[in-house]
Amino acid sequence: MNAVHIAAGRLSLIRRPTPRRQPGHSLLRLVCGGICNTDIELLRGYYGFSGTPGHEFVAEVLESDDPRLPGRRVTGEINLPCRRCGWCLRGLGRHCPHRTVLGIVKHPGAFSDFFTLPDENLHVIPNTIPTQHAVFAEPVAAACEILDQVRIPKAAPVAVLGDGKLGLLIAQVLQAHGAQVTLYGRHKSKLKIARAAGVATEISNKLPRAAYDYSVEATGSSDGLTAAVQITRPRGTIILKSTVHDRVPLDTAPVIVNEITLIGSRCGRFEPALKLLKSGRLQLDQMISDQFALTDAPRAFARAQEPGVLKVLLWRQIL
Amino acid sequence: MNAVHIAAGRLSLIRRPTPRRQPGHSLLRLVCGGICNTDIELLRGYYGFSGTPGHEFVAEVLESDDPRLPGRRVTGEINLPCRRCGWCLRGLGRHCPHRTVLGIVKHPGAFSDFFTLPDENLHVIPNTIPTQHAVFAEPVAAACEILDQVRIPKAAPVAVLGDGKLGLLIAQVLQAHGAQVTLYGRHKSKLKIARAAGVATEISNKLPRAAYDYSVEATGSSDGLTAAVQITRPRGTIILKSTVHDRVPLDTAPVIVNEITLIGSRCGRFEPALKLLKSGRLQLDQMISDQFALTDAPRAFARAQEPGVLKVLLWRQIL
Repeated sequence: MNAVHIAAGRLSLIRRPTPRRQPGHSLLRLVCGGICNTDIELLRGYYGFSGTPGHEFVAEVLESDDPRLPGRRVTGEINLPCRRCGWCLRGLGRHCPHRTVLGIVKHPGAFSDFFTLPDENLHVIPNTIPTQHAVFAEPVAAACEILDQVRIPKAAPVAVLGDGKLGLLIAQVLQAHGAQVTLYGRHKSKLKIARAAGVATEISNKLPRAAYDYSVEATGSSDGLTAAVQITRPRGTIILKSTVHDRVPLDTAPVIVNEITLIGSRCGRFEPALKLLKSGRLQLDQMISDQFALTDAPRAFARAQEPGVLKVLLWRQIL
Repeated sequence: MNAVHIAAGRLSLIRRPTPRRQPGHSLLRLVCGGICNTDIELLRGYYGFSGTPGHEFVAEVLESDDPRLPGRRVTGEINLPCRRCGWCLRGLGRHCPHRTVLGIVKHPGAFSDFFTLPDENLHVIPNTIPTQHAVFAEPVAAACEILDQVRIPKAAPVAVLGDGKLGLLIAQVLQAHGAQVTLYGRHKSKLKIARAAGVATEISNKLPRAAYDYSVEATGSSDGLTAAVQITRPRGTIILKSTVHDRVPLDTAPVIVNEITLIGSRCGRFEPALKLLKSGRLQLDQMISDQFALTDAPRAFARAQEPGVLKVLLWRQIL
């Protein structure tokens, strides 16, 4: 089969044997994958990664122990927990210290013709969600995670910093939840997408001070955290979403003096994400900057790294 | 009257007119003051401070509109809020943006023969608390603030990082609350004080990883935050107590991946602090490294800056 392969900071398409599924796992055939910033970071060597990336996907189930699954269009949760440790038994398998992670940690990813995942990780996609929307399930779940961690009251003003892919999804998800979101970004064309979803937008060259009880840092930039501390009111909450591969300089004094809470936030549950995708309330078509065949993955990854580009999709077969 | 005075990074004893109290304020005569790290930072010029420092004190009320106060031994809250803004009306005057702060922001401090504070700031000290313990009310209140911000279950293991004055008080306060505290520090003599209060201690040359659901950063050092992130379990909470006058390098990746919560924590209510001081459960006598007359303040400040020195007290009259 074809598989995207990263090794020593280089990406190529290689031929590989089709994987064999373990008991309790399904064999999946890729339909569509989405390139995430994490994939680009894997390529850039931040984690010493070598292997097949890809964790945002829609696939068809080919073989499974679960008779309900073959032939179904699915997406899936990316963490493969041990299901035995204390974290797993508390329902927090996403934090299992023994977990592998699809396309990130010791489990081959979705950017290949075929791959495997445990049946429990799979979510059948409702027919009314088109594949090019369903492929956003994983990052939408990551945005929904904020609402599992922080009780944001309806109509509460919320600042989202950063108009990249994640910032745009977070702004839309929180707006759909009922918050009054303002997205701060640098790109007029991207802010326009958020406005179509009812989100207020501001160019982020001058941020207000101590203006929001809730803010989300999704800039992907090393000065984003300082900006978030500035925009947040005393006793307010900052949700940290964007990993930056440098140590970020943080002035802890205003965090302490203003008793601000910072909450790291990562993957989320897929159920609320699929519900939201089904509602059709998210503006996703405009977030797709380009689409390629899986066999064109090197070009797709080059495109995904161009400035201003949002989501790039990889299709196994472009019909 | 005599007053300690800081200007341009120098500390001296000056003569000043006795202050006149405004309506609603009491005129206080210092009994005893405690030198805090913040006072030393003011001297070092971190805030462009000029004036009389001092915000940890026991005083006698000389004049007041409140007939219950004259003659009483008091300590007092250090924030002077406007009492009119939204913060003040919500009972969060400690975050009032218009506040002045005793000995720190635009209100002359306690290291003088006489000073003033609003009657509402004052707390009469129960007779059973000796003055050399009552002078710890402000930092003990800052330690108690943690329990107002975070629900720490009884018997929960908690790591406190840093065996300076604040770390020692925090460890003792959380232990008295019922948590199972381990204090990590570098000084055997200081850790011994914590042990006398029932706190477990460890030399901090090698910290465990992902071992605590709750940790408190009180090292006063720029690598304390990284250590706190390391020692804290996924979904755990780090309370940030020590301000550092540099930007602290923070690797946000483990904070996000492990969904850790960081909470800035500053001043606290005096009621629980005085209750705890009254209980006699805190080991405070061993935390007093030296005592001086107010008129010896320059020597006292020099002493307070020596390595390994804990609390230095300033007495208006050494009897």
